[in-house]
Amino acid sequence: MKKESSPLWLEYKPLNTAFAGRAAIRCPSRVDRQGAAVTELITALKIMLPAAELTFGADSASLIFEADIADFLDPEEYMISADERGASVIGGSESGLLYGIFAYLREIRLAGSFVRMNRRVRPALELRMLDHWDNADGSVERGYSGESFFFEDGKLVVNERTEMYARLLASCGINSAVINNVNVRGEAVRLICEENIPQLARLSALLHRWGIALYLSIDFSAPVSVGGMRTADPLDPAVGYWWSNKARELWKAAPDLGGFLVKADSEGQPGPYAYGRDHADGANMLARAVKPYGGRIIWRAFVYNCTQDWRDTRTDRACAGFRTFAPLDGHFDANVILQVKNGPMDFQVREPVHPLFGAMKHTALAAEFQLAQEYTGQQLHVCCLLPMLREILLWNTCTDIQPGRVIDRICAAAAVSNTGDSFCWTGSELAGANLYGFGRLTFEPQLTAEDIIDEWITLTFGRDEKVREVLSEILLSSHKAYEDYTAPLGLGWLCKPATHYGPDPWGYEFDRWGTYNRADRDGVGIDRAKTGFTAMYNEPLRELYSDPEKCPDELLLFFCRVRYDHLLHSGKTVIQHIYDSHFEGCERAEEFARLWDSLEGRLPAEVFDNGRRRFKEQVRCAREWRDVINAFFHRLSGFSDEQGRKLY
Amino acid sequence: MKKESSPLWLEYKPLNTAFAGRAAIRCPSRVDRQGAAVTELITALKIMLPAAELTFGADSASLIFEADIADFLDPEEYMISADERGASVIGGSESGLLYGIFAYLREIRLAGSFVRMNRRVRPALELRMLDHWDNADGSVERGYSGESFFFEDGKLVVNERTEMYARLLASCGINSAVINNVNVRGEAVRLICEENIPQLARLSALLHRWGIALYLSIDFSAPVSVGGMRTADPLDPAVGYWWSNKARELWKAAPDLGGFLVKADSEGQPGPYAYGRDHADGANMLARAVKPYGGRIIWRAFVYNCTQDWRDTRTDRACAGFRTFAPLDGHFDANVILQVKNGPMDFQVREPVHPLFGAMKHTALAAEFQLAQEYTGQQLHVCCLLPMLREILLWNTCTDIQPGRVIDRICAAAAVSNTGDSFCWTGSELAGANLYGFGRLTFEPQLTAEDIIDEWITLTFGRDEKVREVLSEILLSSHKAYEDYTAPLGLGWLCKPATHYGPDPWGYEFDRWGTYNRADRDGVGIDRAKTGFTAMYNEPLRELYSDPEKCPDELLLFFCRVRYDHLLHSGKTVIQHIYDSHFEGCERAEEFARLWDSLEGRLPAEVFDNGRRRFKEQVRCAREWRDVINAFFHRLSGFSDEQGRKLY
Repeated sequence: MKKESSPLWLEYKPLNTAFAGRAAIRCPSRVDRQGAAVTELITALKIMLPAAELTFGADSASLIFEADIADFLDPEEYMISADERGASVIGGSESGLLYGIFAYLREIRLAGSFVRMNRRVRPALELRMLDHWDNADGSVERGYSGESFFFEDGKLVVNERTEMYARLLASCGINSAVINNVNVRGEAVRLICEENIPQLARLSALLHRWGIALYLSIDFSAPVSVGGMRTADPLDPAVGYWWSNKARELWKAAPDLGGFLVKADSEGQPGPYAYGRDHADGANMLARAVKPYGGRIIWRAFVYNCTQDWRDTRTDRACAGFRTFAPLDGHFDANVILQVKNGPMDFQVREPVHPLFGAMKHTALAAEFQLAQEYTGQQLHVCCLLPMLREILLWNTCTDIQPGRVIDRICAAAAVSNTGDSFCWTGSELAGANLYGFGRLTFEPQLTAEDIIDEWITLTFGRDEKVREVLSEILLSSHKAYEDYTAPLGLGWLCKPATHYGPDPWGYEFDRWGTYNRADRDGVGIDRAKTGFTAMYNEPLRELYSDPEKCPDELLLFFCRVRYDHLLHSGKTVIQHIYDSHFEGCERAEEFARLWDSLEGRLPAEVFDNGRRRFKEQVRCAREWRDVINAFFHRLSGFSDEQGRKLY
Repeated sequence: MKKESSPLWLEYKPLNTAFAGRAAIRCPSRVDRQGAAVTELITALKIMLPAAELTFGADSASLIFEADIADFLDPEEYMISADERGASVIGGSESGLLYGIFAYLREIRLAGSFVRMNRRVRPALELRMLDHWDNADGSVERGYSGESFFFEDGKLVVNERTEMYARLLASCGINSAVINNVNVRGEAVRLICEENIPQLARLSALLHRWGIALYLSIDFSAPVSVGGMRTADPLDPAVGYWWSNKARELWKAAPDLGGFLVKADSEGQPGPYAYGRDHADGANMLARAVKPYGGRIIWRAFVYNCTQDWRDTRTDRACAGFRTFAPLDGHFDANVILQVKNGPMDFQVREPVHPLFGAMKHTALAAEFQLAQEYTGQQLHVCCLLPMLREILLWNTCTDIQPGRVIDRICAAAAVSNTGDSFCWTGSELAGANLYGFGRLTFEPQLTAEDIIDEWITLTFGRDEKVREVLSEILLSSHKAYEDYTAPLGLGWLCKPATHYGPDPWGYEFDRWGTYNRADRDGVGIDRAKTGFTAMYNEPLRELYSDPEKCPDELLLFFCRVRYDHLLHSGKTVIQHIYDSHFEGCERAEEFARLWDSLEGRLPAEVFDNGRRRFKEQVRCAREWRDVINAFFHRLSGFSDEQGRKLY
């Protein structure tokens, strides 16, 4: 069933100007007048200038909009030169032009009128990608925004919502989309099969028009599961031949396909290990199959032992990705991109940056983030991830290659999408900031989180000062608040194992996931110098993280084991910090709810009500987190709260 | 799909005797020759005496079996007088005769030959009932023995397995069966509706032939859910009228129906509270509807707040049943039986006996047990419940009415069944002892667990001395072993909340179920004198349970809060007891596995293999329990093990 959807930040409205004259769009024939760029410009101008007479061509006009394509720009680069009388937008290709048009429209919408601007922008990363964890049956793994809008009962859906989706992505700079779950199950295994190819081709063409390449998550064992073969051994020539034929079949129908995403030998997914091969063998075999078509293989580095014995204190899950992939540096083909999660564990609210970013020197890398708020409140809690994303992208890996920030070491950024078929796409309207911001930030990482958020608020909710002020305040402090009441000092995995929502501090402690806090009556944390993990970082990070006296407070309990009365750089003891941050984080959540309430009447009623319901739940749940985590550490440590607040 | 089933303890085999003469069955016309009793006798004799010539009537014969019915006996009472030349079995009714025949057959099977015996037995309890938690869709709530054999896709099934089921129940003395889950959901709501009545009537007639009354769990709000009414208010005359009509309809088709079982106002089930009425109002309304037909209402006392705030230390779930029902004593109609779980919580491996048994003086009571091993190892662990059941039945409530044991205060015993459509009925062959033993024990509670177990082993596995010895040893010590490695000193609820299997000592601690251990670094347990719970017992129990110096060790952590170095009557400290019992219990489990292995070749291969798989899992899981629970208390208390064993 098709559901209505919001245009989010793409709802055009008339500009302040009362312009009623002639406005001309001029473009040479190398620009596609039916293309997305020119189409979007016309769509926008018609709404923004309702009284204008819109024409094509060289006639005299009071407003002139020139759109062009030029070779001296990179394909996705654009240049804008604009003033009160119009604009000239030039792109390096239709894609670049599209980004330029969107950028220009954004600026005049933000200003409310035509603006003077000169800008030349090139995206910082080659691939800016959304990973959808949508299943063929229409469900979404870790989806908190309704069902899939890509799949229904095993079938691929292409409709107006798909078109709107593509516009939204393009408008914020995202250029790649993996539409199905990395855990390829059920009917999804057959997505690459004959019966689904015509619909894939339609979708690929639709997305391509908006500058977006379609990627598919594939089953590494597809030669067996759908090909009827007896093996998926990557070194078996028949297997390579099968994949080459499959690629030819796919790209013939959908020439703009981007490539495949693969989760192999991880959490039960099949992979090259079954045949005694390594990850490079697996990835390169696929890479060769898609290479003739310019295709890429995105290979996930999220490989660890998910059946660890909790009694085993030597095995450290944090080490697994590095141990598996660092020795393979230089072994991957050029069209393989190794996709590394932002931290060594799994999208916790606070983790150190993954050491692989500072270690892989001869491998194309993608950084993987998670917009779906699996561990960050599931879109019931507001948690704006942009400050964290930016911090990670600009973090210095201290590698000997210069420049050595994460953004310099990667060619791609991927984000697990937070979208679904809910009216506002992301369950909570405020979560839209994460979607928009991910695109904007990976395109222009020099932007600040403040800038992006303010931009998003204005485009989405208009220019009401009070709304901008309140939402900025909430969004910018939301991640810290969530971290404060859930995960003190870098200690993750205190959530309920079954749902990843709500507190259960020892829910993971005696289980198989490698996610332990090892708390006892004397102290808490894991000495990760001892497990070998800190040695995976370049100096001086290695030393910094290995020493409890030097380790940054916010990561102390990730890297070190300390006593509850250990003194932080902040001057507080660990235990008092735990109490304080939980009380304060919870107070912030309560304050968010009050702030939101102050917007009644300034937001559409459905938006306001949806937000109010969610803030109510956030407050309830934040109190639960505060009381459970404080009770847990109080019962273990015996320390009272210095301020005498209630501990259970 | 119909699946094969084992005859369990009812597999007749030829006797040792080489008897080849004439054997006569003699019965007067008041005995039904087509009835179950005579049928069973013939079935058995044909197999036991394969060379005999079996006749009816007064002809001269070497062996004579007389079956009769006599008024001077209670309906379910029987009298046997037997020697080498045959037997005379007299029952108070067809049912009594049936029990007598089964008793006689049991004795000669145990002896392997004809025996001399004189016995007159009357069942100790009027109702000996199985509660099946089978759902209409064929699943079984807390079922560990496969799917339901009563339901398939919303339909009631009656086939040869049903007949075998009835024989098995009758042979061990069970005379009532509730065939559907007390949580009445889905299609089960319509079980009392027109379309299901013909099949219910068939089933009722089949069971009745074997002396078993069919009971149904009903939806208290059926007048609304299936009757199309706007209310199920028990004091609304139209509601009473609806139920009266419904009862008339049901009993007309199935005149031997026993009655209804009701779970009301409990864990989300509807009940009289919705209308501001109490449980007596609800139960009596139904009781009046079924009274004309001799029907009964079994009303469950399992009512508590399942959305408790864990921060709330005043509310004590243990008090809930007493607080709700003690004030209603004397308010229930004569054909209402209040079904009280054996303990105040919920079928933990160790609980005190429910205080309602010593408090209700004017209410017919049933004791409810659970053979389905929900909290006792789910039939993967061997856990013979007979010693515990017997202890509870013979426990002195210390009421001022004499005699005051539980068995004297109740008229019925019900057990949540451990059956399913697995070949051996109970998933694990050894769990069959619980099913058999429940019937035997509630019929003749003077029997010891040792007697019943030995009887069951011989009837089921034959007379191999080694088998009898080993299985007796395993079964008789299995409950203590399970208690030892899971639940020290009466502390329950250390299991995983989602499955009730495996350890998760704080899985329930911060949740809504009222099941807390309140452990901290100094001590553990709840002071239930403070919550008012111990006051619900009669003296001297009240004083015994309120005082940590007097409280029996095995219930100490249920009733009292103590420090880890509190000295038990055993001379050990609490913490050392925890360590010791977990190490010892686990060693017992390992010993069970070795003992079972020693039976290879002495048991049918499928039985042996099934057992070996289960013991392997029991050992794995027992080690997990040992290490997790010990780690939990070690980390909290800081105490080392006196014997220096490994703690994590």
